[in-house]
Amino acid sequence: MLIVQKFGGTSVGDVARIQNVAARVNRVRAQGHQVVVVVSAMAGETDRLVGLAHQIMELPPPREMDLLLSTGERVTIALLAMALEARGIPAQAFTGRQVGIETDSEHTKARIERVTGERLKECLAAGSVAVVAGFQGISRASDVTTLGRGGSDLTAVAVAAALQADRCDIYTDVDGVYTADPRIVSHARKLDRISFEEMLELASLGAKVLQTRSVLFAMRHNVPLQVLSSFSDEPGTLVTEEDKEMEQLAVSGVTYDRNQAKITIHQVPDHPGVASQIFQKVSGANILIDMIIQNVSHQGTTDISFTVPRADLSQARKLMADISVDDKPLNVAVEEDIAKVSVVGVGMRSHSGVAAQMFDALAKDKINILMISTSEIKISCVINERYTELAVRALHDAFGLAGPDKGKKK
Amino acid sequence: MLIVQKFGGTSVGDVARIQNVAARVNRVRAQGHQVVVVVSAMAGETDRLVGLAHQIMELPPPREMDLLLSTGERVTIALLAMALEARGIPAQAFTGRQVGIETDSEHTKARIERVTGERLKECLAAGSVAVVAGFQGISRASDVTTLGRGGSDLTAVAVAAALQADRCDIYTDVDGVYTADPRIVSHARKLDRISFEEMLELASLGAKVLQTRSVLFAMRHNVPLQVLSSFSDEPGTLVTEEDKEMEQLAVSGVTYDRNQAKITIHQVPDHPGVASQIFQKVSGANILIDMIIQNVSHQGTTDISFTVPRADLSQARKLMADISVDDKPLNVAVEEDIAKVSVVGVGMRSHSGVAAQMFDALAKDKINILMISTSEIKISCVINERYTELAVRALHDAFGLAGPDKGKKK
Repeated sequence: MLIVQKFGGTSVGDVARIQNVAARVNRVRAQGHQVVVVVSAMAGETDRLVGLAHQIMELPPPREMDLLLSTGERVTIALLAMALEARGIPAQAFTGRQVGIETDSEHTKARIERVTGERLKECLAAGSVAVVAGFQGISRASDVTTLGRGGSDLTAVAVAAALQADRCDIYTDVDGVYTADPRIVSHARKLDRISFEEMLELASLGAKVLQTRSVLFAMRHNVPLQVLSSFSDEPGTLVTEEDKEMEQLAVSGVTYDRNQAKITIHQVPDHPGVASQIFQKVSGANILIDMIIQNVSHQGTTDISFTVPRADLSQARKLMADISVDDKPLNVAVEEDIAKVSVVGVGMRSHSGVAAQMFDALAKDKINILMISTSEIKISCVINERYTELAVRALHDAFGLAGPDKGKKK
Repeated sequence: MLIVQKFGGTSVGDVARIQNVAARVNRVRAQGHQVVVVVSAMAGETDRLVGLAHQIMELPPPREMDLLLSTGERVTIALLAMALEARGIPAQAFTGRQVGIETDSEHTKARIERVTGERLKECLAAGSVAVVAGFQGISRASDVTTLGRGGSDLTAVAVAAALQADRCDIYTDVDGVYTADPRIVSHARKLDRISFEEMLELASLGAKVLQTRSVLFAMRHNVPLQVLSSFSDEPGTLVTEEDKEMEQLAVSGVTYDRNQAKITIHQVPDHPGVASQIFQKVSGANILIDMIIQNVSHQGTTDISFTVPRADLSQARKLMADISVDDKPLNVAVEEDIAKVSVVGVGMRSHSGVAAQMFDALAKDKINILMISTSEIKISCVINERYTELAVRALHDAFGLAGPDKGKKK
């Protein structure tokens, strides 16, 4: 098999850990597999570089910022290739350019356009391990670009796709994807398998394991992902195409997100164009709106509620203050202490009644639902933040996620 | 004018110093000049990276070592470009590859084969300052190479040659080239001008200001070099083609080198092939022999003396132990406490009697001469190390180098 392994900054945080990674690569290689390793900058290095730049100016030119930041991964690949060589494993380090990771020119958040991978193929054919710098590519102008947050995962997935690898293993500080956050639900269970779509929903709903765009890329190119711990030898969670087995469960996981805030605009005159005026303002400021609810009209006015990332709340508030409808300012109310709890599962497509089951579970614990939003494989409810843990545990139990042997309820 | 400026690691050792460099670049640019700045890694950074590599293995693969070390200069160029932008000066950072510094594939000590400089020309034409990573290039295999010791100076000279710059200013921690080491000769005088050939001799004789190969490159491409201090605003020493004025002085400077050791082989049978056997062994081990003296034969045997870098002495000794002539081991004696003092000047070509004057000056101070070697513009004497300072001062005075206003002797 051809396996792409990706190790984040914590896993390569010092020389001893880099040597651990080399040992791990060696174990996989000793099983007869070809290995490409993608690594991030050593933990703390990116912050150090950003700190140097910010000593000089607040908004450094993005082209130079990318050049600066890309050095972090270059240090790691050189050291890891050395650590492999020191164990007698032939290895070569490759920068984003040498891998042929071609991107657009959007510095600091470039998008991958193409991965040629020629030198990787040569390296693997020669029996060596290829060590690849994550997070970076090369623009058409031949400048170094970086891929933004989660960029090293994306590099790993893109390289795996280009090489038609059998699997892309993402090593991280958790050992897989759980049915719920184990810090909240002590009997949460690690999932052996999960579909791309479920992982996508979990990622976008706040589970920190993988970034949405890496999962999306893997799904599009059908690269099986494995999420596993770099500090243990246990198998992790395989993220792959949906299969029959997955569909037998209505819900695969429960997740929550405390980083949202709710804005309600009371008594909006109920005539065309008002809502669009409000939301164009907000999205024009690049603020991501997650949920929108508009109640039925009542005496010619309506209430509109929507959620925005809490970090963007004050800006969103200012934007609302600039809007007037019929020469009157908007009547805006804000709630910061909200949380969104969600259940996710491809089984929802075939199981009916999941929403009712969810509302019922929350009602049993007297948790009031403020907003509801659904997709084909997900149901989300906004609730008061103080009930977050309670709600997650209730839902985890209600859908029997602990499994037959560990759950409180069977 | 188009001026290439080069700043070493100390001059860019922290953010404040990088901002000083930006201010200095700005001053030159404000005079209406086009500027290309070549920089080294921040002081300490290269050592840090080497330290990381050596934690992993003693002899890291050179290709990966180059990749690792090249990150140091990349950090500096990004930060300096930012510091220029922060002052409102348009600037762009360029790596060795982006400059088109094409080298052979001798990693860690690559030789420059060609400098295209296309992107630098575009950058200058657009009115921007070009900030260039010193010390690095790109091999035909498209791997990062480094140029070895003094590599950033070489980058600056090579870029200046490629762009046909009017001058290459090498900023360093001394403010120019002196008639002698000011730590030894308090009234040593800074030279305003010196010829390439004199500078070459001074460089190879141990004056630490410039590396031989940078001077050689500048001489071949006729790039005027200026050596000056990055911590003052004084003009430095211009290294340029020989001119009439320079020839009026018999001697331009006195220099010394304490890093040599002397090996004498006594009573070598005086038949053909013996000397060649000895010196092939030594040079085969890549040990640089500086001076060789063979006395006239006496009763069928002769004494051969030569000097080697002190660091290579023990290895040279071992090599000698392996040689036997007529089935007998060599009779080897070693002197470590020697120094080489030299006088250098293009004026020697037209002034006769310089050697006699040198021997006379040393004799007056009762300094015994152990070996003598001469070139067209240089005379070197090996003496006992303890007389080094005495000899340098004596020669400095004897050739009137302090100038009409400051010297002890006139």
